[in-house]
Amino acid sequence: MRILVTGSAGFVGSHLVERLLDEGHYVIGVDNYISGQRSNTELFLSHISFSFIEADVSQGIPYTGEPLDWVMHFASPASPPHYQEFPIETLMVGAQGTQNGLELALVHNASFFLASTSEVYGDPQMHPQPETYWGNVNPIGVRSCYDEAKRYAEAITMAYHRKRGVNTRIIRIFNTYGPRMRPDDGRVVTNFIHQALEGKSLTVYGDGSQTRSFQYVDDLIEGIVRLMKVNYHEPINLGNPNEFTVLEFAELVKNQINPELEIVFESITQDDPKRRKPDIGLAQRLLKWTPKTLAIYGIKNLYNNIKDI
Amino acid sequence: MRILVTGSAGFVGSHLVERLLDEGHYVIGVDNYISGQRSNTELFLSHISFSFIEADVSQGIPYTGEPLDWVMHFASPASPPHYQEFPIETLMVGAQGTQNGLELALVHNASFFLASTSEVYGDPQMHPQPETYWGNVNPIGVRSCYDEAKRYAEAITMAYHRKRGVNTRIIRIFNTYGPRMRPDDGRVVTNFIHQALEGKSLTVYGDGSQTRSFQYVDDLIEGIVRLMKVNYHEPINLGNPNEFTVLEFAELVKNQINPELEIVFESITQDDPKRRKPDIGLAQRLLKWTPKTLAIYGIKNLYNNIKDI
Ligand SMILES: NC(=O)c1ccc[n+]([C@@H]2O[C@H](COP(=O)([O-])OP(=O)(O)OC[C@H]3O[C@@H](n4cnc5c(N)ncnc54)[C@H](O)[C@@H]3O)[C@@H](O)[C@H]2O)c1
Ligand SMILES: NC(=O)c1ccc[n+]([C@@H]2O[C@H](COP(=O)([O-])OP(=O)(O)OC[C@H]3O[C@@H](n4cnc5c(N)ncnc54)[C@H](O)[C@@H]3O)[C@@H](O)[C@H]2O)c1
Repeated sequence: MRILVTGSAGFVGSHLVERLLDEGHYVIGVDNYISGQRSNTELFLSHISFSFIEADVSQGIPYTGEPLDWVMHFASPASPPHYQEFPIETLMVGAQGTQNGLELALVHNASFFLASTSEVYGDPQMHPQPETYWGNVNPIGVRSCYDEAKRYAEAITMAYHRKRGVNTRIIRIFNTYGPRMRPDDGRVVTNFIHQALEGKSLTVYGDGSQTRSFQYVDDLIEGIVRLMKVNYHEPINLGNPNEFTVLEFAELVKNQINPELEIVFESITQDDPKRRKPDIGLAQRLLKWTPKTLAIYGIKNLYNNIKDI
Repeated sequence: MRILVTGSAGFVGSHLVERLLDEGHYVIGVDNYISGQRSNTELFLSHISFSFIEADVSQGIPYTGEPLDWVMHFASPASPPHYQEFPIETLMVGAQGTQNGLELALVHNASFFLASTSEVYGDPQMHPQPETYWGNVNPIGVRSCYDEAKRYAEAITMAYHRKRGVNTRIIRIFNTYGPRMRPDDGRVVTNFIHQALEGKSLTVYGDGSQTRSFQYVDDLIEGIVRLMKVNYHEPINLGNPNEFTVLEFAELVKNQINPELEIVFESITQDDPKRRKPDIGLAQRLLKWTPKTLAIYGIKNLYNNIKDI
C-alpha cells in the first residue's frame, strides 16, 4: 500500500514509518520539524520505499504523487513543554491539519487514521477510562490548546466519516515511551531516564501520587497496524493499564538504573491530570491486542538504547 | 468606534448591529447567509454607518478599510437542524473562522469578542452551571460539530490572548429568543411559537422534563455591550436563570396564546442535554447586569412581532 504519514519525524511517527516499511509498504513522510528530529527522517531516506516532504500540514499537504491508500495523521506537538511553547500551532494542526488530511484522503479515496490522545479525558472522574467516557477538560486552561485541539480533531474526523463517507480510524494513545523520544520532551519517563543518565536527581511534580500508565512504543505500533485491518470508526484506547504512581515510577528507575539517585519534589503544573489509566477491553476484543512489554523491560531497553547513542 | 460583526445577518448578530448603530458606532457586517437571512442585512443597508461584506469568514475576512476597534465573532450555525446539516462548516467557522477574526483583530490592534455557548457545558452534571464548570460533552456525538467547535474557539481565543496579547472577551450564551429567529430554527421557543401561529400541536421531545432557561434577546445585547467596557478575558455566562421544563414552557405558550392547542410528545435526539441553567453571579458582579424580561412578556412580544410580519 501507499501510505502518507504526517509527523513522520516524531517519536511515534518514526516507529510507525519503520514498521510500515518493514511490512513492505511505500511510505511518504511529512513533517515540519516543529517538535520532530531530522535524524528521524535520515533513518529512512536511503530506503527505496520512502520519500519525504518537508511541510506544515496545517497550511496544506503538498502531495501530488500516485493514489494513496492511507493518510495517517500523527503530526502534533505532543508533550507539554512543546505545545505550551506553540499553543496556536498545536491548535492549528488539530483543526486545519486534521482537515487537510481528511480532504487528502477524500481526494484519493484513501482511509484516514487519526492519532488522538488520552488527554481528551482530561482530569478523569472515572477510572479506568473507557472510550465511552466523555472526559473532564478545562476548555480555557493552559493545556486546552492540546486537549481541545484533539477533541476537535475527533469531532471533525467523525463529521467526515458521517457526512462524506471517509473510512476513518481514531486511536486515543495513552502515555507512550521508547527510543527516539526527545530528551527535552518533558514527559515523565523521558525526564527520569535523562536525569538518570546525567546522574541528576529525579524530579517528581506534586507529591508523586498521581498515576500514569506507560506503554512501550512497540505495543502501540502493533495496535495501530491491527486497527488498520479492522473496520471500526469510533475511538479506541491504546495504552498499558498497568498503573504506577509517578513516585513508584521514579523508584523503579532509581532501583533499575542507579540506586544512588535522589528523588526531589517540585510544585505541580496547572490542570495536571491526577489519574489516567486506559480501559483496553475494546482493543482486546476488537484487535485481539494487549500490551506485551513490562515497564521494567521497557525502561532498561530505553536506557540502554539511549546510552548507546 | 469601528466594529466588524461576523454573523451580522443572523438572529443575534442583527440585534447587535442594531444596538451598535443606535449607539453611534460604524458597523461592518460580514455574513455568508449559511443560516442567516438577507432581510436582516437589508434592515441596515440604508444606514449611513453600516456596510456589508458577503463572505465566508472561515476562508478569510476580506476587510481592507480603516482601522477597526472591535472584531465581534458571532458567525456560526447555532441551532441543531442547521449545524447538523452543515457539521463541517460549523466546525470550520469555530476554528478557521475564529482564528481569522483573531488575526484581523491582531492586525488592527483591535479587541476581539467571541460568542460562545452554554453548549460547552454539554449535558451538565452540575446545576446551575458556573463558568468554572468544565462541562460534559461527547466529543464524537452528532452535536459535537457545534460543541467542540465552540470549545476550540474558546481555547484559541485564550491562546491569542495569552501568547499574542489580543484584548479578548468570551461570552457563553444560553438559549436566547426574540424577533428575527428563523421559523425553521429548530429551537424549542421558535418551534412552539410557530406551531402556535399555525394552530398546530406543540411538539415536546422526550417527556418534557428537561429544563431550559430562556433569555430575551434584548437582555443578551445589554450584557454584550456592558462587557465591551469591562476588561475581563475569561468566559462569562449570559442567560436567564429562570428555569422552565420544556413541558411547562409548552403550557405557557398554550395558555398565553391559544388554550386550544394540543401538546404532543416525540422521542428525544441523541445527546440532547437534560438540564441547563446559568449561574450568572459573575455577570451580575462584573457587569451589574441581570436579565429584565420575563418569559411571559418575551413570548407575547415575540408572538405579536411575528404575527405582524
Ligand atoms: N507519545 C505519546 O505518549 C502520545 C500520547 C498521546 C498521543 N500522542 C499523539 O501521537 C502523535 C505523535 O506524538 P509523538 O509523541 O511522536 O510527538 P512528537 O513531537 O515526537 O512527534 C510529532 C511530530 O509531528 C510534527 N508536526 C507537528 N506539527 C506539524 C505540522 N503542522 N506539520 C508537519 N509536522 C508537524 C513534529 O515536528 C513531530 O515530528 C501526536 O499526534 C500525539 O498527539 C502521543
Ligand atoms: N441564539 C441562541 O440561543 C444562541 C445560544 C448560544 C450561542 N449562540 C451563538 O450566537 C451566535 C449567533 O447565533 P444566532 O442564534 O444568531 O444564529 P444564526 O444562525 O441566526 O446566526 C448566525 C449567522 O452566522 C452566519 N454564518 C455562519 N457561518 C458563517 C461563515 N462561515 N461565514 C460568514 N457567516 C456565517 C449565518 O449565515 C448567520 O447569519 C452564534 O455564534 C451562536 O453559536 C446563540
